[in-house]
Amino acid sequence: MAKDKKLVEAITPMAEDFAQWYTDVVRKAELVNYSSIKGCMVLRPAGYAIWENIMHQLDARFKETGVENVGMPLFIPESLLQKEKDHVEGFAPEVAWVTHGGNEKLQERLCVRPTSETLFCELYKDIVQSHRDLPKVYNQWCSVVRWEKTTRPFLRTTEFWWQEGHTAHATWEDAEARTVQMLNLYADFCEEVLAIPVIKGQKTDKEKFAGAEATYTIEALMHDGKALQSGTSHNFGDGFAKAFGIQYSDKENKLQYVHQTSWGMSTRIIGALIMVHGDDSGLVLPPRIAPTQVMIIPIAQHKGGVLEKADELKQRLINAGFKVKVDDSDKSPGWKFSEQEMRGIPMRVEIGPKDIEAGQAVLVRRDNREKTIVSLDNLEETVGQILETMQNDMYARAKAHLDSHIYEAVDYDEFKDTVANKPGFVQAMWCGDEACELKIKEDTTATSRCMPFEQKAIADTCVCCGKPAKKLVYWGKAY
Amino acid sequence: MAKDKKLVEAITPMAEDFAQWYTDVVRKAELVNYSSIKGCMVLRPAGYAIWENIMHQLDARFKETGVENVGMPLFIPESLLQKEKDHVEGFAPEVAWVTHGGNEKLQERLCVRPTSETLFCELYKDIVQSHRDLPKVYNQWCSVVRWEKTTRPFLRTTEFWWQEGHTAHATWEDAEARTVQMLNLYADFCEEVLAIPVIKGQKTDKEKFAGAEATYTIEALMHDGKALQSGTSHNFGDGFAKAFGIQYSDKENKLQYVHQTSWGMSTRIIGALIMVHGDDSGLVLPPRIAPTQVMIIPIAQHKGGVLEKADELKQRLINAGFKVKVDDSDKSPGWKFSEQEMRGIPMRVEIGPKDIEAGQAVLVRRDNREKTIVSLDNLEETVGQILETMQNDMYARAKAHLDSHIYEAVDYDEFKDTVANKPGFVQAMWCGDEACELKIKEDTTATSRCMPFEQKAIADTCVCCGKPAKKLVYWGKAY
Repeated sequence: MAKDKKLVEAITPMAEDFAQWYTDVVRKAELVNYSSIKGCMVLRPAGYAIWENIMHQLDARFKETGVENVGMPLFIPESLLQKEKDHVEGFAPEVAWVTHGGNEKLQERLCVRPTSETLFCELYKDIVQSHRDLPKVYNQWCSVVRWEKTTRPFLRTTEFWWQEGHTAHATWEDAEARTVQMLNLYADFCEEVLAIPVIKGQKTDKEKFAGAEATYTIEALMHDGKALQSGTSHNFGDGFAKAFGIQYSDKENKLQYVHQTSWGMSTRIIGALIMVHGDDSGLVLPPRIAPTQVMIIPIAQHKGGVLEKADELKQRLINAGFKVKVDDSDKSPGWKFSEQEMRGIPMRVEIGPKDIEAGQAVLVRRDNREKTIVSLDNLEETVGQILETMQNDMYARAKAHLDSHIYEAVDYDEFKDTVANKPGFVQAMWCGDEACELKIKEDTTATSRCMPFEQKAIADTCVCCGKPAKKLVYWGKAY
Repeated sequence: MAKDKKLVEAITPMAEDFAQWYTDVVRKAELVNYSSIKGCMVLRPAGYAIWENIMHQLDARFKETGVENVGMPLFIPESLLQKEKDHVEGFAPEVAWVTHGGNEKLQERLCVRPTSETLFCELYKDIVQSHRDLPKVYNQWCSVVRWEKTTRPFLRTTEFWWQEGHTAHATWEDAEARTVQMLNLYADFCEEVLAIPVIKGQKTDKEKFAGAEATYTIEALMHDGKALQSGTSHNFGDGFAKAFGIQYSDKENKLQYVHQTSWGMSTRIIGALIMVHGDDSGLVLPPRIAPTQVMIIPIAQHKGGVLEKADELKQRLINAGFKVKVDDSDKSPGWKFSEQEMRGIPMRVEIGPKDIEAGQAVLVRRDNREKTIVSLDNLEETVGQILETMQNDMYARAKAHLDSHIYEAVDYDEFKDTVANKPGFVQAMWCGDEACELKIKEDTTATSRCMPFEQKAIADTCVCCGKPAKKLVYWGKAY
């Protein structure tokens, strides 16, 4: 038993040091390995399989709304990056520069894409001529690079994987509708698949994307009460179109500028999965995103018939549509239990000689460790019910955690006290002035997370300066 | 009609200028757009959808053999690239170098990965300790960069998309078995899905991968009689393991070096699809890889009930498992026919008022333009049969083309005459000396494509130098 416990004891308890707990889970669940390139991570099979599931399910939702995938170049010439003034100011300080190709110095430096607005603009300028060519609703799955000083696996890495959607529309209204549609798609995906409740809202001008007219965001709350921006959708209006000269002839044959959007979700969301659902035994994956949903662990597997029965149950469950593995390695059952828990596999099935004799198996839920003894006759049905219940319970638990960590503050002392002592979101009124955002950040380290779509007035004046309030804002400390 | 023909007339006939025909098809079928980065292509939706289908189907075949996907960094530090002597010599002259991150000069240059052997070695060194950790059968889907002087879409581009499998095994025999297994997997995929017959064989030492002990290849024959290397699989033995120090303790607790392989297939294979199956009207896609298999084109679509019927047939065919679209744009039917043919969509369904009255539709196969009038009662069944027949016919035609373009040569005059006048493969005996390969290339521009797995002796002496022959070799001009 001493050996069995080692795997688990290597995780720092969440309450002791949340940051260390996170790092331990990421490493011990074998999601990530560090590489010799500072800030770049290796996604190991267990980590990449989660990303693959996210890609498959998001991609299917995208395609239902008419999205087409494309493959864009990895490099952006320096002159192309510079075409939109705000955009280059936002990204130039954090890009990697290629200066040599083969043995020759390049005439113009190329940056490794930090995001691909400029490349899509160049493409759209070339292929959009008429209103018949609109809308263009393109997306790509790729990795991007931003030269970060401080990095943490998933949350902030020099290279990360994501999808970036880029669209061109005839009118501002069409662009706005697509921007909101994609934000809602992200929110639904987080809630329905990842069991992560989110707050939907608009970023302040200070926090919006470099070059955007409006940025919409979904914000999730981690177990430690810090916020994580989990997906964003931007309406560019015709700003990029004017900078790049992207025009189409309308039905009256008049030249018009297109209106554009972009929207993205990244491997960062795996950080949210870990920090919303994980516990002191490791990862806990919602059944709908888990690469392996059921791990069958044979007890006394050296005894006749046990491994055969385990394989038979595996096949039955696979035929019923579940993702199932058998752990028939030469480790002890206790070690296998710890490993299954560490990796967040939603359910384990224990099956030994006595179970076989009794025509039953023991099912154990990962999230609350509830045991169910099931007759093998009802195996598929019961496994399905338990996984469904677990998915719903995980969402309900995360939603209760979110709801119980949203506070209100009407004056500045109350605000500062709440930020300092109550981890979570603070709702407070804001005058719309960037100076107040800067002061609040300076005083409390909290930032404006979003102006929620669901607005209400909890006071008449700005929580910071006392001038008339314009918007309700969610504030919080964030990753 | 003049306008309808314009789309097609813009393609240069294959017989007139094959290279220009290829470029025309790539652009007019909207597979690719050029970008402002020399040698980098944009994969447009029609091109990327082919690559997506290739990825999905190859990936499913990989996973059946136990492959796990991972995500590796984009960058390789210069010192890491240099660890294996042959490897760095092969790749260093053609990589892109990152010298600055943000505004700072890097202490060590990073190259953008041209291939990732060195990164996988670093990972395996870290995560392989015991024989229990073997085999590792990892793969990644990504793009890589090689600084090319002359580029052509799909065939040779500075950046291209591919998969690269990298494995580590306990023994040379295990590595060899995996190398051959993956080559066979590629060959089966090409023949069964892409309808492209291939020659399987081993590369000569001169042509093998930088750092490999043995490279196996599949070689396909294009319509113009030139060869295209379409997939490769390498056995590294323990060469990389020794350079990187990747060891495991075996069952007797003795330290052993691992044995490694790598294998890849890239977007280059889309070039093969175009050049094996295309014709003077454009692309011809085999039904099993076509993103859209059936294009329904309404005739006199302004008349009542036509578009509704087209949509009804679309839904019926989608329900039967086919990939179907309706072209209800405001172009003329003739234009739509040309466009469907240009894009290589395997079948079109013509449906107009008279067809509806007669309870029928007209099916037209893309490859031979054969028309079938089908009763709507039998629509799904007939479409399925025709697509299946078309897939098989396309393979048979490509196989007949390959077989009829394989020649034998037993003396050097015959060899030179064949290479000069008969496009295709020339089988000839070889002494095993690199000098003869170099002389043959100098004299004829043909290169050794492979030493086929199916060896036979067509002469006793080398076709070039007359010394005793060791191997039968396929020679040919190649892309």
